[in-house]
Amino acid sequence: MAITLTQLLDKMFAGDEVAVARLMTLVEREGKEVGPILEALAPRLGNAFTIGITGPPGAGKSSLVDHLAALIRKAGKTVGVVAIDPSSPFTGGALLGDRIRMSQHYLDKGVFIRSMATRGSHGGLARATKDVIKLLDAFGRDYVLVETVGVGQTELDVMGTTDTVLVAVVPEAGDGVQVMKAGLMEIADIFVVNKADRDGAARMQTELSLMLELKYSNRPAAEADRPLWRIPVLPTQALTGVGLKELFQAIETHHQFLIESGELGRRRKARRREELLSRVEYEVRRRLTIKSRTDTAFAHFLEEVSEGKIDPQTASTKILESSVLRE
Amino acid sequence: MAITLTQLLDKMFAGDEVAVARLMTLVEREGKEVGPILEALAPRLGNAFTIGITGPPGAGKSSLVDHLAALIRKAGKTVGVVAIDPSSPFTGGALLGDRIRMSQHYLDKGVFIRSMATRGSHGGLARATKDVIKLLDAFGRDYVLVETVGVGQTELDVMGTTDTVLVAVVPEAGDGVQVMKAGLMEIADIFVVNKADRDGAARMQTELSLMLELKYSNRPAAEADRPLWRIPVLPTQALTGVGLKELFQAIETHHQFLIESGELGRRRKARRREELLSRVEYEVRRRLTIKSRTDTAFAHFLEEVSEGKIDPQTASTKILESSVLRE
Repeated sequence: MAITLTQLLDKMFAGDEVAVARLMTLVEREGKEVGPILEALAPRLGNAFTIGITGPPGAGKSSLVDHLAALIRKAGKTVGVVAIDPSSPFTGGALLGDRIRMSQHYLDKGVFIRSMATRGSHGGLARATKDVIKLLDAFGRDYVLVETVGVGQTELDVMGTTDTVLVAVVPEAGDGVQVMKAGLMEIADIFVVNKADRDGAARMQTELSLMLELKYSNRPAAEADRPLWRIPVLPTQALTGVGLKELFQAIETHHQFLIESGELGRRRKARRREELLSRVEYEVRRRLTIKSRTDTAFAHFLEEVSEGKIDPQTASTKILESSVLRE
Repeated sequence: MAITLTQLLDKMFAGDEVAVARLMTLVEREGKEVGPILEALAPRLGNAFTIGITGPPGAGKSSLVDHLAALIRKAGKTVGVVAIDPSSPFTGGALLGDRIRMSQHYLDKGVFIRSMATRGSHGGLARATKDVIKLLDAFGRDYVLVETVGVGQTELDVMGTTDTVLVAVVPEAGDGVQVMKAGLMEIADIFVVNKADRDGAARMQTELSLMLELKYSNRPAAEADRPLWRIPVLPTQALTGVGLKELFQAIETHHQFLIESGELGRRRKARRREELLSRVEYEVRRRLTIKSRTDTAFAHFLEEVSEGKIDPQTASTKILESSVLRE
């Protein structure tokens, strides 16, 4: 390319938005550049406060993100937005409809928006998302908002990389038990009952609060000496902006709590360790996939596994005891 | 233990249900027995027809599974049911409320039910579920029904291991775009619009059908010469059983299609290959976790990663080039 990676990185560190976007594309493509990029970012990480926003489809997450971005800007801070959109089976591209709403920020250099497609997942998306968050952090954004649709392993992985997790639900989502079944109770730092003008909103809020009380009273003994964060359950109407200031305030309060309790450091340490493990896993898959195309003996071995002649468990042990994984 | 693994396997092959349940517990615990168990199962696999049932929380999947199990029994066939229940943050156990409904099958030896908790996931659940399905297959079940809640990476992984995927939605789930956003369009072989007596059911059916037409007309060129399966969109009322016979018929029709088109073989081959890759990934994580407890030099290295002194990408490469992964 006409520009070297070092030049691109320098441009980004100098505040060039086009350079950030190009670097994001590089980490999404998962090429050889990822390693050097991450190495270059490493000394500049940890200044952004990252906020994850998740919940079932239709919970109004995009509107919440939109308002939060505006409030962050009003507070004189910069923001990066990462939105994970499932890819369409028709075009292979992302469904960007929701993002059109963000167009009020289009001319504001203090808001950087990136949509990620979920195409070709397998941990790849979660990993690429983490790298994009790092790029925004190293780019100097004060806040990074990460929006995911639904709650599955990828979403949980992504939420696991943010400092504060906001879970949005709507009265129609069913009752508190459904929220619990979806695993949302475990990850929420703040609950938002959006579309709070609808039937059942008050009941939803009460149910969530009761279930949270139950959660506190069943706290594991190992955590008993750590300060307890009481998860707020906030009503909002994201379309009209009702309750959004209170929500932003709650996020700031949680931020303070994380710092003062030492929890922020603990979370970030655990996160880096987890990131290492998942990167090794990913690299293993990548190397095996390449080997299957370039090494005929290994390709033959894989074919025997595909045909059921060698069971996957035995094959896995063989691979780990061999030197196949070394490059 | 008083009984050896070989004896346990022999008991299972002789039809002992208690032995199957104990073997399931062993694969869930992910101990040393997993390898030998899978090796023993390998020659007995591939006879069960596996059906995945997924969709958003509240779509009535448990009721659908319940009815399908009854219809399979009526057809004189045996069935195994694997239900993935998210674990409760309170007890660490599975939420088994929905399963109580299955009690009509309690005394029927032709129905074997297993609930899996989602606790401590990270691919572990998907892998354990695949092993449990294999146990039911090797146990001689004609059908295996696998029910998952929600749609995330784990659910997609699990659905990827079944022969037919049934996606259940309800009119309240929003519109077809939401279904598409949740990635359900890509995995469905059969759509069920459950609670079809509610408002919006007809509209939901029409929308899904239209989106499917769009999908067919945008078929990748590479698949153009393969026979096309036209995904049915079936209305059901699982609580009362309306539409269930038609659903079972559609499953049987898809089964025939898979066999006649050669797609069944193709899917199973791809599945075994994928299983190998994910087993290697899992084993890598397991070995590193053990090493972090037993090898002080490696523990120190991990600590430096946790503190941000070594970036995860560099550390990952170092691990793969070392002999840390060998046991």
